[in-house]
Amino acid sequence: MSLRGGVTLRGQLQAKLDGKAKPLGSLGRIEALAVQLGMIQDSLRPQVVDPVVLVFAGDHGAVASGVSAYPSAVTAVMVGAYLEGRGAVNVFARQAGARLVVVDAGVAADLPSHPGLVAAKVQPGTRDWLHGPAMALDDLDAALRRAARIVDDLAESGCTVLALGEMGIGNTASAALLVHKVAGLGLDVLIGRGAGLDDAGLARKRTVMAQGAARTAASLRPRNAMAEYGGFEIAMLVGAILRAAERGVCVLIDGVIVTAAAVLAHAMQPDCLASCVFAHRSAELGHDTMLAHLDAVPLLDLGMRLGEGTGAALALPLLRAAASVLADMADLQDLVG
Amino acid sequence: MSLRGGVTLRGQLQAKLDGKAKPLGSLGRIEALAVQLGMIQDSLRPQVVDPVVLVFAGDHGAVASGVSAYPSAVTAVMVGAYLEGRGAVNVFARQAGARLVVVDAGVAADLPSHPGLVAAKVQPGTRDWLHGPAMALDDLDAALRRAARIVDDLAESGCTVLALGEMGIGNTASAALLVHKVAGLGLDVLIGRGAGLDDAGLARKRTVMAQGAARTAASLRPRNAMAEYGGFEIAMLVGAILRAAERGVCVLIDGVIVTAAAVLAHAMQPDCLASCVFAHRSAELGHDTMLAHLDAVPLLDLGMRLGEGTGAALALPLLRAAASVLADMADLQDLVG
Repeated sequence: MSLRGGVTLRGQLQAKLDGKAKPLGSLGRIEALAVQLGMIQDSLRPQVVDPVVLVFAGDHGAVASGVSAYPSAVTAVMVGAYLEGRGAVNVFARQAGARLVVVDAGVAADLPSHPGLVAAKVQPGTRDWLHGPAMALDDLDAALRRAARIVDDLAESGCTVLALGEMGIGNTASAALLVHKVAGLGLDVLIGRGAGLDDAGLARKRTVMAQGAARTAASLRPRNAMAEYGGFEIAMLVGAILRAAERGVCVLIDGVIVTAAAVLAHAMQPDCLASCVFAHRSAELGHDTMLAHLDAVPLLDLGMRLGEGTGAALALPLLRAAASVLADMADLQDLVG
Repeated sequence: MSLRGGVTLRGQLQAKLDGKAKPLGSLGRIEALAVQLGMIQDSLRPQVVDPVVLVFAGDHGAVASGVSAYPSAVTAVMVGAYLEGRGAVNVFARQAGARLVVVDAGVAADLPSHPGLVAAKVQPGTRDWLHGPAMALDDLDAALRRAARIVDDLAESGCTVLALGEMGIGNTASAALLVHKVAGLGLDVLIGRGAGLDDAGLARKRTVMAQGAARTAASLRPRNAMAEYGGFEIAMLVGAILRAAERGVCVLIDGVIVTAAAVLAHAMQPDCLASCVFAHRSAELGHDTMLAHLDAVPLLDLGMRLGEGTGAALALPLLRAAASVLADMADLQDLVG
């Protein structure tokens, strides 16, 4: 914690807010957000510069065993929609004044070269975790490294805020298994309908996941869990969160999948949570349990369950507002002095 | 309700959302917001055009009897801050891409001419409601008429969304008395600390308000209640909400004061609520009670209690996002066709 004249930076940020032309504390969580952003950037005047919505995409071999309402081919279709600027996350990113960057972490299809796409494919999808490990440890480490490199490049070009999102048919199953194995949360409360399973589909997903979970030890370390259950996009999210924290880049955490990545990153490096702003509460089963584990209360609660980074993008204006309070709002002293 | 080919507009809007490239219902309240905006504008492609944060300011004679932590002079000081662009509401309006218009509804000071200020002063503040009516019925009607005219002018220049706010030292007391008399809600659950009363100040406010409430009948019609308890800015908010509903202009409802105005407008014309989007849940005591009375669940819950229109301005990006889903997001058919 930075000390300036014996006062912590946190204390200085709060004092600056308290000097603004408003009743003490009257901006509620916007004030807490301003303090957090100042702490992340080690600055009394933090800024939201070149915010990027960073969407990691990957496929999951376990889809073949029936854990999703959609086939894996939909992952590449949706990536195509993002590159055309027509996904929900594009729409929200544009409204928030953020550019969108898609990362091919492990999509099971050849994707076209595109200025908005970072080609970082480790493998064309994971293997089915029902029958064995989803990926080799070497591939996991490659995913973590590549994600760190992407964050480095964005930070060096001036980006101060990353809104994290994902696309990967089957990834709610992976996310639940990861959190179950690493954080010890019950699998039952983590398994939801994902993108739209009916009752029979949900029952099948539960059975397959119980079988997949039984294949390994009750508790796993984060790296081993990721190698066992995937996916490449989740591993890259973990790598991105860890590197962003090291570099003082603020990350907006989206829904179930990105929060699962935050649970893993937290297990590897607890301090990284200081750089995480939890953007929204997903309606997907399991998110509340993960949030409670991290002691996190998201900014928004809009009943969304789409993923992609939609919730993170919607919360970006709140972060901008928080920074502007510190930067642009009058001090009480200016008005009465 | 518009019928097109036998299908209601509401049904068509939901069908359009259901055809987008996302799981059904997965955008939660953003979808409901898109439907509401479409219904308000009678359009399958509603738009947020030239949004205006409209801040009504007025003073309250009852401040002399001790219902606020601040003197009335602060109202004019804060209006000055808004005209300089340095209030919290300015900061949030800028972030949301909205212009801010301040209306002098009844400030107890001469305000300078300014392009961002609408001079609509009815009287230089209300009279103290502790001893008699706050304003004459003629003055009330002038306030309602002037507010309607302001909304007409904005709508005719193309504005489709109004974010409503207010400034008026002492106006949480008026708002509570109005809601108490018109909606029959208990005064005790409506009296909060306003801009920052301490325990002794709060006790005094309660006593003064109980005395003021005892001066008139237990239940009053909205016009009579406004004449008895003011203020000019609240009356103009009521007039603005009613006229906006007539003209198909969407209004974002801010915190306690604007919600009190919505309670009154609802009592005068229940249909007007269809045009109201409740923006945020205030931390000020009484707001929850008013919201429950209107069956309203706000979009944001950030622990704010500043007023000015800050909550309404913060919710504007969500409205833009909702409109963009209808306008810009890919249909599922486009992607798989």
